[in-house]
Amino acid sequence: MPYIALEDHLPGITGLLEYSKGTAQPIRELTQFLLRGPSTLTEAERELIATVVSYGNQCAFCTTAHTAAADLLAGETETAASVKQNIETAPVSEKMKALLTIASQTRESGRAVTTEAVERAKAAGASDVEIHDTVLIAALFCLYNRYVDGLATSLPAEAGYYDVLAGRLVNHGYTRLPQGYDHLKKAV
Amino acid sequence: MPYIALEDHLPGITGLLEYSKGTAQPIRELTQFLLRGPSTLTEAERELIATVVSYGNQCAFCTTAHTAAADLLAGETETAASVKQNIETAPVSEKMKALLTIASQTRESGRAVTTEAVERAKAAGASDVEIHDTVLIAALFCLYNRYVDGLATSLPAEAGYYDVLAGRLVNHGYTRLPQGYDHLKKAV
Repeated sequence: MPYIALEDHLPGITGLLEYSKGTAQPIRELTQFLLRGPSTLTEAERELIATVVSYGNQCAFCTTAHTAAADLLAGETETAASVKQNIETAPVSEKMKALLTIASQTRESGRAVTTEAVERAKAAGASDVEIHDTVLIAALFCLYNRYVDGLATSLPAEAGYYDVLAGRLVNHGYTRLPQGYDHLKKAV
Repeated sequence: MPYIALEDHLPGITGLLEYSKGTAQPIRELTQFLLRGPSTLTEAERELIATVVSYGNQCAFCTTAHTAAADLLAGETETAASVKQNIETAPVSEKMKALLTIASQTRESGRAVTTEAVERAKAAGASDVEIHDTVLIAALFCLYNRYVDGLATSLPAEAGYYDVLAGRLVNHGYTRLPQGYDHLKKAV
């Protein structure tokens, strides 16, 4: 039962974005820019960062949603499942292992990000922008996870919900759906 | 020494907002809406939430900046100093004690926010919107604190820096300064 009056049919973050439209707009734009904007990190890699942080914060809604998005973008489910269990043994590049480590440290605390982790990322070819975006994506999901769980939002009732949501995040991104897509909004 | 190449004369968050303008814009808009937009919480009360969260996260730049803004808005320095030490004995209303407790719990984890803390806030007269905004402001500063410290941004060299910054945040808000104010941007 959410701590504030949210629409019953909109679980997790979706009810909050409807509840507070003035804050929803910049949150959507920030997410769209970071996770779908021009980047040398793939969309799947950026969803992995969101997944690892949400999993570390034990946010069930965000973890399941972004795992589903990462899986859909990658075309397989092994990578996202692996990085949640152990970054070092997951089937990702050395650069991604280093960036996911920085994301995990950021999740813990900004002060937990080590020079060693950053040097490892740079040695593996990570650019300043990639390191910047990794820290900011991790910080953004620390916001999302706290927003979703801090107000005790509900989980979806239907088992297939996350697949529909992932399809929407992959095909339409994070900004508000254009007019005429209301049926899709209601569906998820 | 920051982990990425930021402009030397722009400490803390200011160098990051210059480094990444595409993400800076929605971050500024979200902050402006939450901390300066229409609300039944005063601007000073909202700065206290930012202060308590930044202090809990041990983010020196954000704590000092938002303490200075809260002090300037309140016209005194006792309240911000007190809430950082002990919310329960600070000279704020019962409603603010309850909301600052929710903010502190949100800082720890979204899952740490208790039904008891929310019921206490409602019993003290807090509205759903006030509880929503408290959680989201706390979550936003968990983003800021991680962004600022996760990239090891520098602290200002001049002792008077934070007073100038606080004056800007109180008088001009969080959105980008209009054309013609570039001298102010350089100064802080």
